[in-house]
Formats: sequence, structure tokens, C-alpha cells
Amino acid sequence: MNQEYFTGIKTIAYEGPKTRNRLAFRHYNAEEVVGKKKMKDHLRFSMAYWHAMKNTSSDPFGGGTRQRPWDDGSSTVENARRVADAGFEFMQKLGLGFYCFHDRDVAPELGDLQASNDALDAVADHLRKLQRQTGIKLLWGTACLFAHPRYMQGAATSPSADVYAIAAAQVKHAMDVTHRLGGLGYTFWGGREGYATLLNTDMKRETGNLAHFLHMAVEYKKKIGFKGQFYIEPKPREPSTHQYDSDAAACLNFLREHDLLEHFKLNIETNHATLALHRVEHELAVAAGAGALGSIDANTGDELVGWDTDQFPTNVYMATQMTLQLLKMGGFKTGGLNFDAKVRRESYEPVDLFHAHIGGMDTFARGLKIAHRIIEDGELDRFVKTRYASFDNGIGKTVTTGKATFESLEKHALKLGPVLPASGRQEMLENLLNDYVL
Amino acid sequence: MNQEYFTGIKTIAYEGPKTRNRLAFRHYNAEEVVGKKKMKDHLRFSMAYWHAMKNTSSDPFGGGTRQRPWDDGSSTVENARRVADAGFEFMQKLGLGFYCFHDRDVAPELGDLQASNDALDAVADHLRKLQRQTGIKLLWGTACLFAHPRYMQGAATSPSADVYAIAAAQVKHAMDVTHRLGGLGYTFWGGREGYATLLNTDMKRETGNLAHFLHMAVEYKKKIGFKGQFYIEPKPREPSTHQYDSDAAACLNFLREHDLLEHFKLNIETNHATLALHRVEHELAVAAGAGALGSIDANTGDELVGWDTDQFPTNVYMATQMTLQLLKMGGFKTGGLNFDAKVRRESYEPVDLFHAHIGGMDTFARGLKIAHRIIEDGELDRFVKTRYASFDNGIGKTVTTGKATFESLEKHALKLGPVLPASGRQEMLENLLNDYVL
Amino acid sequence: MNQEYFTGIKTIAYEGPKTRNRLAFRHYNAEEVVGKKKMKDHLRFSMAYWHAMKNTSSDPFGGGTRQRPWDDGSSTVENARRVADAGFEFMQKLGLGFYCFHDRDVAPELGDLQASNDALDAVADHLRKLQRQTGIKLLWGTACLFAHPRYMQGAATSPSADVYAIAAAQVKHAMDVTHRLGGLGYTFWGGREGYATLLNTDMKRETGNLAHFLHMAVEYKKKIGFKGQFYIEPKPREPSTHQYDSDAAACLNFLREHDLLEHFKLNIETNHATLALHRVEHELAVAAGAGALGSIDANTGDELVGWDTDQFPTNVYMATQMTLQLLKMGGFKTGGLNFDAKVRRESYEPVDLFHAHIGGMDTFARGLKIAHRIIEDGELDRFVKTRYASFDNGIGKTVTTGKATFESLEKHALKLGPVLPASGRQEMLENLLNDYVL
Amino acid sequence: MNQEYFTGIKTIAYEGPKTRNRLAFRHYNAEEVVGKKKMKDHLRFSMAYWHAMKNTSSDPFGGGTRQRPWDDGSSTVENARRVADAGFEFMQKLGLGFYCFHDRDVAPELGDLQASNDALDAVADHLRKLQRQTGIKLLWGTACLFAHPRYMQGAATSPSADVYAIAAAQVKHAMDVTHRLGGLGYTFWGGREGYATLLNTDMKRETGNLAHFLHMAVEYKKKIGFKGQFYIEPKPREPSTHQYDSDAAACLNFLREHDLLEHFKLNIETNHATLALHRVEHELAVAAGAGALGSIDANTGDELVGWDTDQFPTNVYMATQMTLQLLKMGGFKTGGLNFDAKVRRESYEPVDLFHAHIGGMDTFARGLKIAHRIIEDGELDRFVKTRYASFDNGIGKTVTTGKATFESLEKHALKLGPVLPASGRQEMLENLLNDYVL
Repeated sequence: MNQEYFTGIKTIAYEGPKTRNRLAFRHYNAEEVVGKKKMKDHLRFSMAYWHAMKNTSSDPFGGGTRQRPWDDGSSTVENARRVADAGFEFMQKLGLGFYCFHDRDVAPELGDLQASNDALDAVADHLRKLQRQTGIKLLWGTACLFAHPRYMQGAATSPSADVYAIAAAQVKHAMDVTHRLGGLGYTFWGGREGYATLLNTDMKRETGNLAHFLHMAVEYKKKIGFKGQFYIEPKPREPSTHQYDSDAAACLNFLREHDLLEHFKLNIETNHATLALHRVEHELAVAAGAGALGSIDANTGDELVGWDTDQFPTNVYMATQMTLQLLKMGGFKTGGLNFDAKVRRESYEPVDLFHAHIGGMDTFARGLKIAHRIIEDGELDRFVKTRYASFDNGIGKTVTTGKATFESLEKHALKLGPVLPASGRQEMLENLLNDYVL
Repeated sequence: MNQEYFTGIKTIAYEGPKTRNRLAFRHYNAEEVVGKKKMKDHLRFSMAYWHAMKNTSSDPFGGGTRQRPWDDGSSTVENARRVADAGFEFMQKLGLGFYCFHDRDVAPELGDLQASNDALDAVADHLRKLQRQTGIKLLWGTACLFAHPRYMQGAATSPSADVYAIAAAQVKHAMDVTHRLGGLGYTFWGGREGYATLLNTDMKRETGNLAHFLHMAVEYKKKIGFKGQFYIEPKPREPSTHQYDSDAAACLNFLREHDLLEHFKLNIETNHATLALHRVEHELAVAAGAGALGSIDANTGDELVGWDTDQFPTNVYMATQMTLQLLKMGGFKTGGLNFDAKVRRESYEPVDLFHAHIGGMDTFARGLKIAHRIIEDGELDRFVKTRYASFDNGIGKTVTTGKATFESLEKHALKLGPVLPASGRQEMLENLLNDYVL
Repeated sequence: MNQEYFTGIKTIAYEGPKTRNRLAFRHYNAEEVVGKKKMKDHLRFSMAYWHAMKNTSSDPFGGGTRQRPWDDGSSTVENARRVADAGFEFMQKLGLGFYCFHDRDVAPELGDLQASNDALDAVADHLRKLQRQTGIKLLWGTACLFAHPRYMQGAATSPSADVYAIAAAQVKHAMDVTHRLGGLGYTFWGGREGYATLLNTDMKRETGNLAHFLHMAVEYKKKIGFKGQFYIEPKPREPSTHQYDSDAAACLNFLREHDLLEHFKLNIETNHATLALHRVEHELAVAAGAGALGSIDANTGDELVGWDTDQFPTNVYMATQMTLQLLKMGGFKTGGLNFDAKVRRESYEPVDLFHAHIGGMDTFARGLKIAHRIIEDGELDRFVKTRYASFDNGIGKTVTTGKATFESLEKHALKLGPVLPASGRQEMLENLLNDYVL
Repeated sequence: MNQEYFTGIKTIAYEGPKTRNRLAFRHYNAEEVVGKKKMKDHLRFSMAYWHAMKNTSSDPFGGGTRQRPWDDGSSTVENARRVADAGFEFMQKLGLGFYCFHDRDVAPELGDLQASNDALDAVADHLRKLQRQTGIKLLWGTACLFAHPRYMQGAATSPSADVYAIAAAQVKHAMDVTHRLGGLGYTFWGGREGYATLLNTDMKRETGNLAHFLHMAVEYKKKIGFKGQFYIEPKPREPSTHQYDSDAAACLNFLREHDLLEHFKLNIETNHATLALHRVEHELAVAAGAGALGSIDANTGDELVGWDTDQFPTNVYMATQMTLQLLKMGGFKTGGLNFDAKVRRESYEPVDLFHAHIGGMDTFARGLKIAHRIIEDGELDRFVKTRYASFDNGIGKTVTTGKATFESLEKHALKLGPVLPASGRQEMLENLLNDYVL
């Protein structure tokens, strides 16, 4: 890591809101304490290796645009090591404490499985060295089970048993490497686990195979003593017409049905939430409500287009809503805020990667401070508590304690005159939120 | 039921595809046997009392347009009886064997709960008489927990314990009446069970209260000896910004979490599926896969507009896909095809109600015959079986039987050369489907 | 206007961002000068009579909830006058300088046209009096051509010539009244001008009739000497499956085709823009680019639901983008910011109307100050200018001045080496925007 | 063209609806006369070179899957000639009479413009030979102004004058080649003409440059004597967040504003229509209504996903609606039905290309016959005529002839009693449509 790849860009420093320097933090001050924790420990920012280091910014209508001088495009371990060097330089300059990767991001897919495994092992040695040098940790690892043509019809839901076996072998090795690197978690994103048309699909068989796949992973995890957290990442459509893990509720339903819930938490991504037509705070609340909010893929989408734009988050309203859910559940245990976001195809210079991450980090720092203040002040919270207060006493308490029956409630109801709940005050609360945000 | 309300319209007869009479069936021939059952026993068509009898065709931009000479608009038992007479005349003329209602469709909501209960009982006596006279059955009953202002913030998820109690009392009475009328089921559609903004909402508390509500219903059902099936009806948005029962998976997840799955099946509605961005056949397959497909609300939406248009189904592709799922699961046990659809606001004459239902019935009759032929021919089914055949032998069988491990699969994978699944042949299968449909 | 209707609520005062009083302005300070104009003259806030005064907050799933003690629901001139008194009290307390109405908001629709006209005239006399007393002005008037059943299939595009004639008569009278009240404009929102299915529709005939309708309006305007601005308001769907005036481009195309562009400007509404899958700033820019941005209906929608939620705007990003377009075109000439927004159905008390409008006014005040600062600083503007600078000199200038030909450009191109545009810097610009917003 | 590439697949023959041969036409019988024209002359099917010959079926989540033994992937004229041979073999076997291409589909983009031009010329010679040998014609040509990184920020709307010049040079040469090959048309699809964010965009300048670009094309067309039709192809989003040519109305508005309408017709694509939330028949009707329906890109999308899936059309309802609009406007003059559709990524074998095109051709053949019968029978048409009959006489006729005024209509209106239009009968008409379709 002697050579510098992001030349001309120094370590990004906190300079406060008044600075004119665009390569500085205005709000993110890693060591600043908010509540009882440092900002960096609240937010646990992570670099997404695939987007930051490997994405060429190609799209369905054109080739890659991104300048990546550290990557010669060759499928060699040497190139992979150089990319890793650049990646760690990038993380250090930004002060990112974590990263996440797919096996095929950090190391090349080669002609056969053994060769790919060997390459991954070789790069992993290098990554371990870089982690030690920098103190940067692996937030989670995963296996890329969607890019290779063999996975065109799914991996753990492929109609081909051979493809299924290769997928299993690939996950096994990715888990080994994640374990070796001290990864804090391992993520399953369903890639192409879904279908294009029911005409050729046996959904029951496919989801059954998927459940078995995850059970094997649980078994293997025990066997190797990997203590990291398993995550499932919901996404509704894309690339399949229908993805099985379409939203938080669909994932939880699947995990409950197949007795897997104790072994998995959810990794919620903003743009995946909005593609499912849910606000991201809804998905976070659903996951947290089930005790299953594990980690967050921080990005944003464009609600007016229908695909996963994976843009960098700069909307402070959204960051506030997200950190509010995070603080309410007591903060991250094993997960973090992973920037699963890519610079726009038109933003092709290395410095754009910095602008993008600085903006995301500042936005969440701002959101954190706002959310913390909202919770400290307690005004919103008191409103909500008061709104449901009728369930804390009298007839309501019999509901809360599970003692009410249709008969007991009817008896109460027959004695009531006209009843209305209090005004929901949505507009007033939105104004109140603006007091904090602005 | 002596007076005729749909004057000038005779009983609708099957006249075959060549007829020029628009008030005749071209495809639906109630007594015709398809496979081992009569059409009417396969399809179990039901009239939705609220849309067919009570909907005025108002919309957010204008008042009612529909001509309903049988309904003077008064909140009296007398008017309710007359509407019931018209409804049964309508069902008889169409040959509909079932109907579904909300308590407040068949009887008026009056000033206090006792008065409303009494009115409902009085009308129920009349409905029982009409059922006996005609042989028409109650497919399911339900309580309207969304129209009255008291329910503006939910019923079983209301922040007001008094509103919750009234809702419970209302469901209790609606269950009593459904039981008395020999109803084959009882449906819970979440009406306003959801939220407009998380700023004022305690989702955990609301869904907990909802679960308790359903447990009370299960208890009460046992107590009164009601044997009908309980249904939950998923819907994603509308009227709330977020409805808790957003799709089949969300409902199943909720039922599993709260140990309610054994007591409930799902009532799947086409337009609710598409609002959740799922094909209706997907939702049917998800429900059937969980052993929980109970009944169907037959309608269709407009995928290019974003609300529940509840149009009458006339698309034979869709009807084919739906009946295919229905036949695959062995047909209806307790449910049926309930036309939860309304004539367009511009189609305001009584005869339009006939056109609409005739179209829906013919469409599903056509779909049924096509789906039956698809299953008889077996070509689609064979394609699917073959596609997954690698899981019936060898390494695949170890997956199917649950014996495979990551290690055993890796061992297999390391010996494989390049592997691809067979072509998915979506285009060929869509062409094959057209052979049946056209 | 002696009786007070909004009792207990005083005139809303500017108290600055630190106040804890929720019935106060934090950012809107009417007399404060921003740039060269007072805030009130920049923003020209207007009350939408239909939502603020007449909307009962019913929705397709339930009846009205709103408390409107000033409205006894009777179709009388007396009631209409009382509602007007309440409306002017409301506007005065908020400091709203303008209002907008439909004929049927301010006065009842009675049994025949002459009676309705007379009622409107009678109420108009009262409105004129209130305008004089308060200094509040009519921003624009319009005729409600969508609520009455006769308009179920359109008004100026109705298939019935009689309906068309009634619509014309109604607009004629609404224009008369608007003129009499010194209205600064008159708006045409296409209500039900569109279609539900092409199967029964002659689009060419309908749009031809619509064009003639607007030409008659232009003629009549000249005849009576009305100098107010005519506006067309785009909306894509709802209530029709397809509305002819679907977005700004569709309106401009129609106006150009029928030689009406010189007589009309556009009234752009945020939620209508997003329903057409455009950002509101796009629609504003399209309209302004054609010299046709006239007025704004200020509200917001929920991009994740598919209908016109007409919520009050509280998002400062959006208000900033909107005022930025407004300032760039030099501000309003005849139009204003009309709060075409309704309180949520759950916010049913009169005080909620205040919270809602205060939030909207503060949000736009904040947006105005931010947008003004953005323009003063000029940094964003300089970025854009620089981005296109290659068109200010050399070969680019031949394009700008229209002298370039394919041949001249080819000659230039053949001499070029590899060419890329400069980075689009979207992320940096979004960060820069946050510097202003936060 | 001696070597056979699609080995084992014979010329696809018409075998009628009963055949079990999946590589046969069931409905498309090229020489069969429908009305006064042969099917092939009605439908004028065209192969889209980019999808059929060059698309590798990669997507944003994975690499290409498609087997294309004729294409070695090299950027050589030799390879390009071989692909052309395969393409013409394919078209001959299917009986496709036309094809469409981008310059960069048929020939490689090389290091500099002159080399690319030379390569295109060399391949064009070969294409001309193949056209002569087979009688297949070029329906339209176009230039690919979106794939190369230089076009990342647009071509005719690029902020770089050099990029603009290269785009102009490329179109000039593509027009030359199209002219040389006897192309019947030339299409402008806006590729990346749009924007990602208004923060960095001068929309007025960009659209002004685009208008100048098209005027240069018109000039150059005259100069070289090219008589083919110019087409603009609307598309709303993708790849840009906002595309300028978002729908038919937006294109027409642009063409009218810049005095280009006489020189351009529209090329309407189904999936682009639905992405704009319009039915394709709406877009066809809008274009035809303006005398500007030129050609059709035949495909279909999935309304429940939000991107351009470009699937092969197999829905007969849709094909019926489309051919209905086509027949009503008197059929194609210069355009045709170009299969701008790709096989699914999972359908990767050459034979899948045949299945896909056979399905599309059969579907439109079926649609044509149905639409022809609908028009012959005249029942739908009579319904529509009757619906508007009140505009053919009396007061309505004064509207139709432009003689009505607000005063004359008010006079009429004041004498009317209650008025309603006749029922819209949408359900009956949908049933009637099913009589034809099934």
C-alpha cells in the first residue's frame, strides 16, 4: 500500500458547516459524541467494494465510463491486490471503518471453481494484511450468485442441481474467507432467486430448495465456528420479474415458515424498500419490530423511476427517519451503514467517489444529530404515548393484557355514546419535524 | 320478493358463443361438466352486496350516478328489505349461487349500537327467508369497520380503546348473523388497519392489538360453534398510506408470528395483488403454497393507474392463470369467486350491472375450460417437471431429501465442468399458452 | 363577519424559528424583504376554497370527518355566506392575501341553471364585500365541471351536446363572476376531460370540441373585457383513466395545435406532476421554458401511492427547487401559490387547518430564502454556465448561432481525438444544495 | 451467405392453428389476404438488428448468456459480415421482409471516426448485396448515440460541443448509408437526450441544440435527396431520469415548437408507452390524430416492473387494439412492425429467437384478423358514432361547425331540464370485444 492511487486527495477532515472546501466533512465528526457514543460508533459506515471499487458505471444502454486507474481489468490476483490497495487507501482517506464484499469483487472468477477458490484465498491474505495495517474491519462478506451465466435462472433456486451445488460450494468458500477475515456478518441477497414467469416455475420446489440451502449454511456456520451474524436482504423486483425476498415481511414469513428466524436478521436497503412501495422507515420498523433489524444498505432511489438507481443518500429527512428507527432499537449490534450506492454514470472521476461518500456521511451525521435531539426532547414520543393512552387503563388495559373478550368489549361498547379518536395531527407533527431538521 | 325491480330483463341463459344477444351467456353454462364438476361448482360465483346493490358510483370528484330504483336512500329496515329483494332477484336472474356482505351493506347504521344491531337482526330474518326461497347461500359475511368516522384511524388498530371495543362488538354481531345465515365463511379486510405516518404511530402496539382482536374472534367462533372459514384479505395501500395486510406474504407472516395461521386462510383479490406489484397468480400461488388459499375476490385493476379500480374481469389470459392455480390446488373448499367489482361510474343503468356480471362469468368460464384443457394435456406440466428433473436423482436428490451439506455439494461441484441450466423457453411457453387461450 | 368561527385561535404571527408556539410562523414573515420584494409579494399565498372550506374529508372508503361548525350543509345562500365569513376570517388570521374558488364551492348548485346562477350572484355580492373589507383578492376563479352526474363523461368533451351547452353556460357565468370580483385569473382544470376506454371514445372529436370550447372562452373574455390570465392545469390520470391534459407538454402541444397558446398559461400542481412521473421542478421548467408558467398549486403527493393525495407541502428540498424555478423566471406576474391541499382525514379539527397552512407557508418561506441565497451566491449557476461553455465559442458557437451544418460539424469531428464531457458532478452538486438547505 | 448458421431450423411455414409443430405459424400466413391487402403488406414485420443479432442478454446484474455462434465478438468487418449473413438467414427463414439497424449494430465502432465510417461503408456494401439476394428491405436506419462513453451526457443535448459535432457526423454518415441501402426511413431515438438532475442542466439550451440538430438533419436529407421518412421515438425515462421525448404529446409539442412537425412522424413503442403510463393504443391514437403515426416498435412490457423489459408481444388483446388503430388510419405508409424485443436472458439458444418471433408474428396476425373483423362488422364503430350523434344536429352541430358561442349555448342550456349522457356501456363493449378476440 505504498503507492497512492487517489493522488491529490488528502484525508478528508471535519471542517464544520461553514467550510468552502468540498472535500471536507461539514457534519460528520467521527470522534464527536452524540448521546453516549461516538458518531463513528453509531453510524459504522462501510464501503461497498462492488460499487466503490469494481463498478465500471456501464448500464443497459452503454459501456463503462468510470476512471479506475488502479484496475487494469485483468482477472489476476495481482490486479485484485492492487484494487484492494486502492480500496483501503480510499477508506482510510474517508475514515470508513468497515467494508463489505462479494467473493467475486475482491478476487476474479476463473475457469474452474478450484482456481477461483485459490485466487480468493490469495487475495484474502492480502486483505487480512490491509485490515491489520489500517484497523478497517469486514462488516460482512457475501458470494456473488447472480453475475455468472450459470446463475441466470437462480442459484439456490436454480432448476439445475449442478448449479445449486456450485452455488453451495461458492457460499461455503465465501463463508470460510469471511470467517478468516474476522467478518462481523455474512449476507444472503437473493440475486436471481425468483422467477420470470410462473409458466416454467415450481415455486414451492424452488423456495423449498432455498430453505434447505440456508439450513446448510447454518449448519456449516456452526461447524466452522463462525460467530458473525447472518443477514437476508429483501428486494422486490429486479433482476427477476419476481424476487422471492420481496420485502421485509416476505423474508420474515419465509424465515418463520422454515424455522430459520433465529439464525437470520435483515439487511434493509432504502431503494429496495421504495421499489416495494414501502418507505424505508417502514421496512426498518417491521424488521426491528420482529427483533430482526441487523444492518442497513444506505442509498436512495428515485421514486419516479422504477428500478434500483442506488444513488448516494443526501436527503436529511430520510436520514433522520432512518437513524430515528436505529436509535429506537438501541443502535447497531453487528451491522452498520453500508454505502450500497454508486456514483452516477456521468460522475466518472475518482474524486466523484469522494464527493459521493462525503455527502452520504454528512447526511447521516446530520440525521443522527437530529434524531438524537428528537429523542432527547421527547415531544414526538410523548405525542405517540398519549395517543394510545386509553390502552393503559380501564377497558383498554384489558385489551393490552389480553383479558378482553368480544363479550366484555361489547358490554362496554353498548354503553358508549358517540366516540371519535383524537385528531391525528399529522400536519402539526410534520411541522414539528421540520423544527428539528432545518 | 313479488315485485320485479330489474324489469325488462329476463333470466340470463346460456346461448353459446354465436348468439347476438348481449344479455346471454356465451361460455358460462352452469350445469356443464368440466372435469369432474359442474361449472357452477368449480366457480362458485358470488355477488358482492356492497358494489352490486349499495354502491352509488360516487368518486372523489363527484357524486353518485347509479340508477337504483329499489333504494330510496333511507336508513330504514324497510328500505333494506327492498334492496335485499332486488339483490336476490338480480342473483336469480344471473344464476349466482352465493353472495357476500358487510353488516352495513344489508342493514343501516343507526344512532347507537343496539339500534344498529336490531336493524341487522331484522334484515337478517328477511335474508334467511330469501336464501330459503332461492337456494342462494352466504359465501361470507363481514363487518364494515372503515366507513364510519369513528374508524378514521383504524378499528382493531385504533389508538382509541373505545373505538376498538365498538369494533369488537360490531364483529361479534356480524359473526352471529353470519352464523345464523349459514355463512360458509367470515372475512377480515383490514379497512383502515394501517397508518398514514409513522410520526404518530406505534406500529408494534397496533399490530399487537390487531392480533389480540383476531384471537378473540377465534375464541368467539368456537364459543358459538360457527364452522365457517375465517379469511384475511391482503391489500397494500388505500385507504391508508400503508396497510398492515399489504400482500399475501405480509398476512402469512403476521398470522405465523401470532399463532393464527391454523385459523385463517386468505381471500385474494386481483386488484389488491397488482397494487402490491404482484401478478394475481403469484399471490394465489403464495397462498396456496402455504395451504392458505381460501377464496377469491374476482375483479381487475388498471396497472397504469395507482388505485383500486375494481373493474369487472374480462381478460381471459388472467382468468386462465387464476383458474389454473385454482384447479392445481384442487378447487375451492369453502370459498368462491366473489365479484368484488363495480360498474364504471359512466355505466349507470341497472342493465349495466348485468352486462358486467355476464362478462365476468363468461370470462372465468372460458378461463376454466382453458385451464382444464391445459392440465388435461399436461404439456406445460411436463415442461416444468422436466426442468427440475435433476433434483429427482443423484446429487439433486440429496438436496430434495435434505441430506446434502455444503461439503457434499462442494465435493460434487469441484468435479464439474462448465454448467448451464437448460433454456427457460419463456417465449415458447407463452406461445403454447396462446394455443389454449385463442 | 362579526361572528368568530375559529374561536380560540388568534392571528398567526411571525415569532421566528425558536418559538415553541405551534400556532406561529417560524420562517414566514410577510413584510420581510427577500431580494427586492417582500415575502408576501414573492409567494402570493392563496387559500383553495374547496379544500379549506368545503371538503368534508370523505374518501372512497368512508364519510366526512371534518368539523366545520360554520357549514350546516344546506344548499342555501345563507349558508354559503356564513361559510364565506368563516373563510375570510381564516385567511385574515393566516395573512393569506388571495383565494381561489369553483363556482360550486362558494354557492350551491340548485335545481336549475338559472337558480344556481342567481345563488352565485348573490354570494358574489357578499364575497365582494368581504374582499373590500379585508383587502384579500381573488387569485382565480373556475367552474366545477366534474362533480355533477351530468359531467360523468366529461364537460367540454362530453358526448352529449346538451351537457356541453350547460358546461359552456356555467363557465360563462363563472367568468362573469370572476370578472366582477376583480379576479386576477381564470383556471381550466379538465376535471373529467379524458376517457375511460377508447372502445367508446372518439378522441379526435372530443379534443376538437374542447378546443372550440376554449376558443369560445377567449372570445367571451374579450367581449366582457376580462383582463385576467387564463390557466390550464395539467393532470395525468384521475378521475379518468386518461386525462387529455396529462402533463405540461401535453397541454402545450394541445394549445399549440389549436392556436391557443398566446391566450393560456399553465397552473402547475406538484402532485399532478408526480402522478405523471415528473418532478414538479421539471414541469415548472417546461412551462417556464415555453413562457407559459402562470401559477402554482402548492401541495405534495406521496410518490409511493398512486393517487392525488393533495397533502400540505412541508419538504424544504421541494420548496427550494420550486422557488428556484420561480425566481429564475422573475417571479409571479398574475399567479400565486395556491394551497390546493387538504388536511388528512384523521386531522379533523379546525385547528388542523391552521397547522397545515402554517407548515406550508413556513416551508415555502424557507425555500424562498434558500433559493434566493443560491441565486445570490451564483455557485450553482456558474457550474451550469461553465458546463455548456463550449457552445459559446468556436465550433460550439456555430451551433448556438444556427450556422453549423452536418458537413461543417463532420469536418470538425474528423479532426478530434478522444472526447469526453466533464464529469456531471451530480453528487457534489447535491452536497452543495444541502449546504444551502440545512 | 452459403454457410448455414441456424442449423436444424427450416423455413418457418404456415401450418394453421392445429399444428403441434412449435416452429410453425398458426395464424400468420404471409400471402393470405385480409381486406384488400396481404397479411405481409399489412404488418410489414421487421427484425431489430440490435436485439436479434447483437444483444448478448447481459443485464445490470450479470454477463451475456446468449449463444451466438456466428459472432466471434471481434470488432472486425469480417465478423460484421458474418453476423449479417446470419441475420439475413434468420429473416429469410422467418419470412421477415424488413430490418432496422443502428450504425454500430451492423459495423464496429473503431478507434476513430474515419475508421468507423470506413467499416460501416464496407459492411453496407455487403448488406446491399444481401438485400438484393433476398429482397429484404431496410425499414429504417439510425445512429447509436448512447452506447459510447462520450455520449454519457447526451449527444445532440451534450454539454460538450465536440461530442455534439461527433454525433452530427455520425448521423450524417448513418443517413448516407441508410440512403445508399434504399432505407424507407430514418429514426431518431433520443438515447440519452434528457437529464439526470436539473442542478447541472440548462434544459432550454439542450432542447434548443436538439432542435437545431434535427433541422440540420432535415437540411442534409434534402441535400442528398433521401426520400425516406424521419421518425422520432418517444420514451419517458431510462436511461436518463428524464428523457425529453417522454411521450407522443411531448414529441409533438417539441416538433410544433421548433417547426419540425412536417418533417417527422412518430415511431411508437409499446413498452415506452406503458412506461409513460399510457396504453399503447392511446399513444398510437395521439400520433395518428396528429397525422404523425409513422411506424411501430412491436414489443411489450411488464406493467408491474418499472423498466423497459422489451418482451416479445404475445397478448392478442393488445395486438388487436394496436392493429385496430393501424387499420383506422389506413395502414402503414412507410413504416412497419419492428420487433424491438429481446428474448429473455434465460432463453439463450438460437431456437429461442425463432420461438419469440413466431409468437410475435402469430399474435399480430391474429390481432389483424380480429381488428379487421371488428371494422367490417362495424358494431363498435356504430356505438361510437351514436354516442356523439347529438353533435351532428341542432345545437351540437353549431359546436361542430364552430358557430356556437357561450351566449348561444347558455340560451340553449337555460331551457334544458335535467340532462345525462347515455350510459358509457364500457362493460358491454369489453364483452363485445371478447366476442371477437376469443
